[in-house]
Amino acid sequence: MTRFKERDLIALAESLAGSRETDPSVKIGIGDDCAVLQPESQKDLVVTTDCLAEGIHFDLSYFKPYELGSKSAAVNLSDIAAMGGMPKWALVAISSPPYASKYFLKEFLKGLIDQLAEAGAVLIGGDSVSSAGPFNITVTLVGEVGRDRYLTRSMARPGDLLFCSGYLGEASLGLRWLQKFGRKYRPGLKQTIKRLILRHLVPAPRLELGRALAASGLVRCAIDVSDGPATDVAHICAQSSVKAVIYERAVPISRASKRIAAFLGIDSLDAALRGGEDFELIWTARPEYMQQISKIAAKTCSKAFAIGRIEEGKGVWLEGNSGCLEEISFKGYEHDI
Amino acid sequence: MTRFKERDLIALAESLAGSRETDPSVKIGIGDDCAVLQPESQKDLVVTTDCLAEGIHFDLSYFKPYELGSKSAAVNLSDIAAMGGMPKWALVAISSPPYASKYFLKEFLKGLIDQLAEAGAVLIGGDSVSSAGPFNITVTLVGEVGRDRYLTRSMARPGDLLFCSGYLGEASLGLRWLQKFGRKYRPGLKQTIKRLILRHLVPAPRLELGRALAASGLVRCAIDVSDGPATDVAHICAQSSVKAVIYERAVPISRASKRIAAFLGIDSLDAALRGGEDFELIWTARPEYMQQISKIAAKTCSKAFAIGRIEEGKGVWLEGNSGCLEEISFKGYEHDI
Repeated sequence: MTRFKERDLIALAESLAGSRETDPSVKIGIGDDCAVLQPESQKDLVVTTDCLAEGIHFDLSYFKPYELGSKSAAVNLSDIAAMGGMPKWALVAISSPPYASKYFLKEFLKGLIDQLAEAGAVLIGGDSVSSAGPFNITVTLVGEVGRDRYLTRSMARPGDLLFCSGYLGEASLGLRWLQKFGRKYRPGLKQTIKRLILRHLVPAPRLELGRALAASGLVRCAIDVSDGPATDVAHICAQSSVKAVIYERAVPISRASKRIAAFLGIDSLDAALRGGEDFELIWTARPEYMQQISKIAAKTCSKAFAIGRIEEGKGVWLEGNSGCLEEISFKGYEHDI
Repeated sequence: MTRFKERDLIALAESLAGSRETDPSVKIGIGDDCAVLQPESQKDLVVTTDCLAEGIHFDLSYFKPYELGSKSAAVNLSDIAAMGGMPKWALVAISSPPYASKYFLKEFLKGLIDQLAEAGAVLIGGDSVSSAGPFNITVTLVGEVGRDRYLTRSMARPGDLLFCSGYLGEASLGLRWLQKFGRKYRPGLKQTIKRLILRHLVPAPRLELGRALAASGLVRCAIDVSDGPATDVAHICAQSSVKAVIYERAVPISRASKRIAAFLGIDSLDAALRGGEDFELIWTARPEYMQQISKIAAKTCSKAFAIGRIEEGKGVWLEGNSGCLEEISFKGYEHDI
């Protein structure tokens, strides 16, 4: 295994990112003390950082390094999507263990840079260190959004409907499959399993939808599904000082999810509400905008499932098919720190 | 030991940072999917990220958590200083091991936020995760600089003098002391040792100097001393396509360094050139600006030691007191990655 000096890695990142660095907003990219950027005037900046730790967020027994790079970008891109922003500039800090090979790091960087490029963003800097511990990857992403046109968790209002951009629970079921069987398929289930595990390995952030919702002026409140709606919607409720009611009958669960959940002996509703990492968007809007919102979603190849309503009160509640209410606030996936 | 949920840590960071978040440029701080910022118009952004790994960059046997927080900010602030920028907004990703206590994390955050505040910057977001491995801390810092007024590694020109803002080698000697004796002093050396170990534990980034040099228009090229001049100046040479000659007689070494180096049996010149982490600035300028530059340095409580010259050619060379030249390019401290 070839070991890198930090400056070899920087040179590699520079050569991989270089061809993408034609963005005139990047005055200095990788390789100086700081990157230098020229933001557009009359825009706000949106900034996010996410840390992925080996053994907690990913397992290299089933993650290909290219996929890991791609996912490291995607989880941050999804945060920018939830604000209605345009991702622009990314930095990556890699803490890599003694067993990291040159091949691994190169593939990782390729995956990261390709996923960024697909979203219109470039890698402008980073840091790397060899550590005693497992892999630790921190990506920071800066984007732009029209002045005061951002979406936020704190703008849900009683009377709003609660929307979701796609099927819930697929990513966590994909993860459970990977943990149990790795990348091995079952006869007759290959496409179904593949769909679910790819939801975990290479999530697709809803960037176009986020921007279209923000630009429409019809939506002010959104979050992305990272810990599962039970927790993510609880953040909206806490920060908007409202109550959310999610209808059991309206929770979007795909046929693929139902099949694999049955196979694994897992409740697909539970996976949908508490599983996390689907990286769909959840947002609120006045009921009278429903039709317009459906059109916006369709234009960006998303759905606009109406999954619940916002009321005065506190917490996230699940309205069962029998009509009974159960509180599920913060019962999604939460890391200890 | 009390363990945290991630949202407890976010709430703590919010309450600690909250009082500092009166900066009107911060529209949304900690606690949403992204922070939202309004940059000043007609400024460029400078962005940097630095990763500190336990066992590589720091050892908790002698680092107090408050100091570690402070240093995590300082190493990034120093990068902004080297670009001539004004630090504004910081994010922190903490990957913490099972033995991290609530007290530790609180003190760490306090140190981080205080050091940022002293430099005029605020904590606007972050991420936290519990991992199997050692501590891993990544701080990302965004600052502003006058449009096209940034300093860069690539603007050294033959004929320039090479300057340094303060004594070199103190931080690495402080580190060597800590590694050998911890925070135990020796009779008669207490103040001397304290000075050196504090250079390692709580470095003081040269922000005012960097901004003043950039604003003067006399300086276009700078770097901060993180890996030692043998490596840091080599970056200037590589990126400016020039050769640097450092005069042995002009390398600024303090009396404190000489005493402790002698005690430890280390060559103080070696510590100065290869030790790193002094976080002084090194810059180049035309010889005719020397007097003006000395005044700027004095105004910002720094020095402007002329330590060498820039010529046509390649690499960093040390001109010994006997006049002989030895190449020292990239012989400073470099991490494997």
